Amino acid sequence: MIILSARKSTETFNYSSMKFYSKKNLHFLLYDVFQIENLAQYPLFEEHNKETYNMVLDACTDLSTQKLRPILTEMDRNAPDFVNGRIKVHPDMKELMQAFGSGGWINAPLSYEEGGQQMPYMIFNATIFIMGAANYSASVYPFLSAGAANLIRSFGTEAIKAAYLENLYNGTWQGTMALTEPEAGSSLGDISTSAEPTEEGYYKIKGQKIFISCGDHDGVENIVHLMLARIKGAPKGSKGISLFVVPRMRPDAEGNLEFNDVTTGGIFHKMGYKGAPIAHIITGEQDDCRGYLVGEANKGLHCMFQMMNEARIAVGFNATSIASAAYYASLQYCRERSQGRRMGTKPAAQSLIIEHADVKRMLLFQRSVVEGSLSLLMECSRYADLSRVTTGEEQQKYEAILGLLTPVAKSYPSEMGCLSTSTAIQCLGGYGFTEEFLPELFYREARIHPIHEGTTAIHGMDLLGRKIAKDQGASLNLLIIEITETIQKATEVASLQAYAASLGTTLEKIADATMHLSSLAMQGKLEAFLADSTLYLETFGVTIIAWQWLKQGLVATEKLGGHEDDFYQGKLYTMEYFFEYELPKTRSLLKTLQSKTSVTVDMQDGHFD
Amino acid sequence: MIILSARKSTETFNYSSMKFYSKKNLHFLLYDVFQIENLAQYPLFEEHNKETYNMVLDACTDLSTQKLRPILTEMDRNAPDFVNGRIKVHPDMKELMQAFGSGGWINAPLSYEEGGQQMPYMIFNATIFIMGAANYSASVYPFLSAGAANLIRSFGTEAIKAAYLENLYNGTWQGTMALTEPEAGSSLGDISTSAEPTEEGYYKIKGQKIFISCGDHDGVENIVHLMLARIKGAPKGSKGISLFVVPRMRPDAEGNLEFNDVTTGGIFHKMGYKGAPIAHIITGEQDDCRGYLVGEANKGLHCMFQMMNEARIAVGFNATSIASAAYYASLQYCRERSQGRRMGTKPAAQSLIIEHADVKRMLLFQRSVVEGSLSLLMECSRYADLSRVTTGEEQQKYEAILGLLTPVAKSYPSEMGCLSTSTAIQCLGGYGFTEEFLPELFYREARIHPIHEGTTAIHGMDLLGRKIAKDQGASLNLLIIEITETIQKATEVASLQAYAASLGTTLEKIADATMHLSSLAMQGKLEAFLADSTLYLETFGVTIIAWQWLKQGLVATEKLGGHEDDFYQGKLYTMEYFFEYELPKTRSLLKTLQSKTSVTVDMQDGHFD
Repeated sequence: MIILSARKSTETFNYSSMKFYSKKNLHFLLYDVFQIENLAQYPLFEEHNKETYNMVLDACTDLSTQKLRPILTEMDRNAPDFVNGRIKVHPDMKELMQAFGSGGWINAPLSYEEGGQQMPYMIFNATIFIMGAANYSASVYPFLSAGAANLIRSFGTEAIKAAYLENLYNGTWQGTMALTEPEAGSSLGDISTSAEPTEEGYYKIKGQKIFISCGDHDGVENIVHLMLARIKGAPKGSKGISLFVVPRMRPDAEGNLEFNDVTTGGIFHKMGYKGAPIAHIITGEQDDCRGYLVGEANKGLHCMFQMMNEARIAVGFNATSIASAAYYASLQYCRERSQGRRMGTKPAAQSLIIEHADVKRMLLFQRSVVEGSLSLLMECSRYADLSRVTTGEEQQKYEAILGLLTPVAKSYPSEMGCLSTSTAIQCLGGYGFTEEFLPELFYREARIHPIHEGTTAIHGMDLLGRKIAKDQGASLNLLIIEITETIQKATEVASLQAYAASLGTTLEKIADATMHLSSLAMQGKLEAFLADSTLYLETFGVTIIAWQWLKQGLVATEKLGGHEDDFYQGKLYTMEYFFEYELPKTRSLLKTLQSKTSVTVDMQDGHFD
Repeated sequence: MIILSARKSTETFNYSSMKFYSKKNLHFLLYDVFQIENLAQYPLFEEHNKETYNMVLDACTDLSTQKLRPILTEMDRNAPDFVNGRIKVHPDMKELMQAFGSGGWINAPLSYEEGGQQMPYMIFNATIFIMGAANYSASVYPFLSAGAANLIRSFGTEAIKAAYLENLYNGTWQGTMALTEPEAGSSLGDISTSAEPTEEGYYKIKGQKIFISCGDHDGVENIVHLMLARIKGAPKGSKGISLFVVPRMRPDAEGNLEFNDVTTGGIFHKMGYKGAPIAHIITGEQDDCRGYLVGEANKGLHCMFQMMNEARIAVGFNATSIASAAYYASLQYCRERSQGRRMGTKPAAQSLIIEHADVKRMLLFQRSVVEGSLSLLMECSRYADLSRVTTGEEQQKYEAILGLLTPVAKSYPSEMGCLSTSTAIQCLGGYGFTEEFLPELFYREARIHPIHEGTTAIHGMDLLGRKIAKDQGASLNLLIIEITETIQKATEVASLQAYAASLGTTLEKIADATMHLSSLAMQGKLEAFLADSTLYLETFGVTIIAWQWLKQGLVATEKLGGHEDDFYQGKLYTMEYFFEYELPKTRSLLKTLQSKTSVTVDMQDGHFD
């Protein structure tokens, strides 16, 4: 129902009945486009089938609808607070952490022996997507625990595993990733938190960490930081960084908890994503903070990258979650709100605004972003699943393509999520700017994603300067083979030929631009090579999403088979929208990428006044 | 100074010492590019000169720095509240309203006889820009009074003028524009507030208005609404709407104030722009609300358009104000923050982030938006000034071009202001998402501008469907002559020839696209004609701003004259940025505009699930 009068008090509304994602679309991607049931051919996944997957997804939707969505606006408006040196979060988080743990929402991908469900990432990540669409802030708590626990599981000693894993996976303790420092954000090589070896085997940790998500809160008994620090005497830069488990309370041999000299310096007040506390953490003020080495000394960044790659895909999912929630909020509004008359008609009563072409354009834009991004993220999850069950060259191929797609899968949904949620606001007009409706909340939440887990610029450099350059384009070629396969299939379908051709042409132009930029690198012009890598990433991203739309278009065309069906027809229209309105953006980006200008290099500090 | 630790309490920071606009750039536009001193040839402006203009601008800057900026964050964090049926605003607003009134900030363009200063709009609008950059919310109060008072001045009877003008212009009373109703936002023709004639000459008003900026507050003695309503029996639609003065308290013959049955239904809680209250207003609940007709009956929309056109230009200025404040906040951060090393160098210490090409790109983007928009808005202000002092064909020409440019001058800064403030956040990384720094506040504030005073879609239809179509392109041709003049001048300067050619080519393509779209209209395909008018507006906007950059480039090249000067060199780099990174965006837009797709028309409600 549309609320047309101004709010008279600070009452909050219950949005739990509002749709926040499309189950039909999720099933379309999982079962029709990516054919997850094929995974059953591998022993790891052989006990799963459509029925078990749907049970998981439905249970996740129930939890999200009944427990997460009802506290969405409360968590935003009564943000966590810093009281007497500790952070207080929404009172429901205590019960929720238990629910996340007992429901298997933290450890589902683990083997049965480890207490997990051998869940494919396609399904596990779908649950991240669903929970994030219901209530992004609440959904990050379990995800952070999973990331921390998975690092311990991969690199920790048996003693550390025994001491930490159970409580992290069952939701009793909170895990974090503690990387950033005041002077070391994007530049991790410059972290200065120190670790001094002791004869007892542990290290004495001293230093400060900032922007630590869920770095402290009263919804759990203990906080376990997976923290980067520099062992005294270690090499400078990124080759001297090690990974430690640094608990707030350290368990002794009997499992009793003792304070580990980890204090909370404060909380960051943020524009959105308010329900999850972001803490300033101080270690070793009393010279009694113990850290336990995880993995090899000085190989901390290597270990951390496992967590960061998972986190980057998760950020892509969450950015898509928020855009999805905003899309459905605005779609509902457009179907209820009357205003003006459809162009060319003169009825006495006003038209629903969904009848206006420009409103439909705004909805199509949002849907193309949401469903295009989700498709790419499912593609990435599929590669992650396949790399778990394959070996040798095949496995290397999946890992190479996943590595190449990761910066895109993180950045495209993040950047476009900001525009998509903004478009949701625009659909509501003046109401969209008010707190009576949800889009403004989503707009504020979405803005974190182009920043955390590596800014968009960092991912541009990762794509062009590392992922493409490291093997002289070999990974890129593997990806191009995959895309070309889709193009070839589409060429055989009359209604898709034009789109196939359009994608093929764009791909060739990207190859040209890549050659052009690489030639700069080969001439030693490193700064010019990477100066526009953010634009390169954007170009690459739009093209990859066009590939995903063509994939979806192929399946939708087949399913439709000449009959009438709103869902598949809507899919095809949205594909058409993407190819006609979004893919052309690569034209201007490629023009700039191939330009001879060096203005962003030439411009100097003094010229900015 | 960069604050690197988390905030421990709800302390607020004093940002009054931070730069929020460039005086040098403002002077460059006023004196060098638009040569405001030439206005002295007209009697209306003959007493003004550079010295008097600078006195006004400096006084405005002092007021903004000393009174407006210091309460910027307070007004955001302690937003107006609805208490016992009335709206309470920041306590300083009482003093500020007096200061706006006594300082002449409400009535400066008026003639000396009317108590004004015969101030050119170029200067008056520059003061709107400066105050908006200091504190947007605070700056709208006087502007709204000016708009309301100017309507009374243009269309009111002598009795109404005598009763209202003085108190509106001196800041004792607040003026508003009361258009929107729950069922009539973009669709003003559907207004249902009723006005019943009485034998006493006044009308009895009954109805509800929403989203009324400054619609009620305790910083003034009275609120005077310029309200649209429908006289009983009037024609349906926009031809039956009349304009009324509807005061909250009505003055009697002796000037005593009596309650006029105008109550406040509530306040809208918004994402940003929080310091200015947006009210829900109820009239005639006791059947005792008197409204006084302004202008002719049923011609209310015509009258209101005077105010709306002024307001649209002002919104452009304010969007630019906010982007300017965000630009300087992020520029300061980039000059103080060290992170990483400049590409291709390996110093021991980290580089200032302003040394990174991608950071410079983000700053160039912001600057190109801010200074490009401000230039266009000054161009519009110049046309407004010239139309005040000319007659006949010359005046018609200025009015035609101003009319054509108004949707662009409103929308380009509004849309790009959202992206520009977002880029300011990105420059700050994680800090940009926190309330410790200003960009997040600007990001929230900027989002209102694509909505109020007509959404971007409304302006797209205004440009293509009304302003260009109404005279078969005659106004458009007048504008093209102006642009062509700049192109010709630039063609004579070797370093600008490529830019001149590029702008010329784009202009031709826009002409082609306009022909293509017009042919649809001529075939009666009205829906297809206007379906992409938002994209047409965007294309037009980027091109117009390129024109403004070429204008600035011409002057900067001449001023530089082969010497070194950071300001002029920076201008030329920013022009280069705009032509290499922004103008190419028209390529993809034009591709879409010329596409045969009709997907936004074909897609139907049911396809969206």
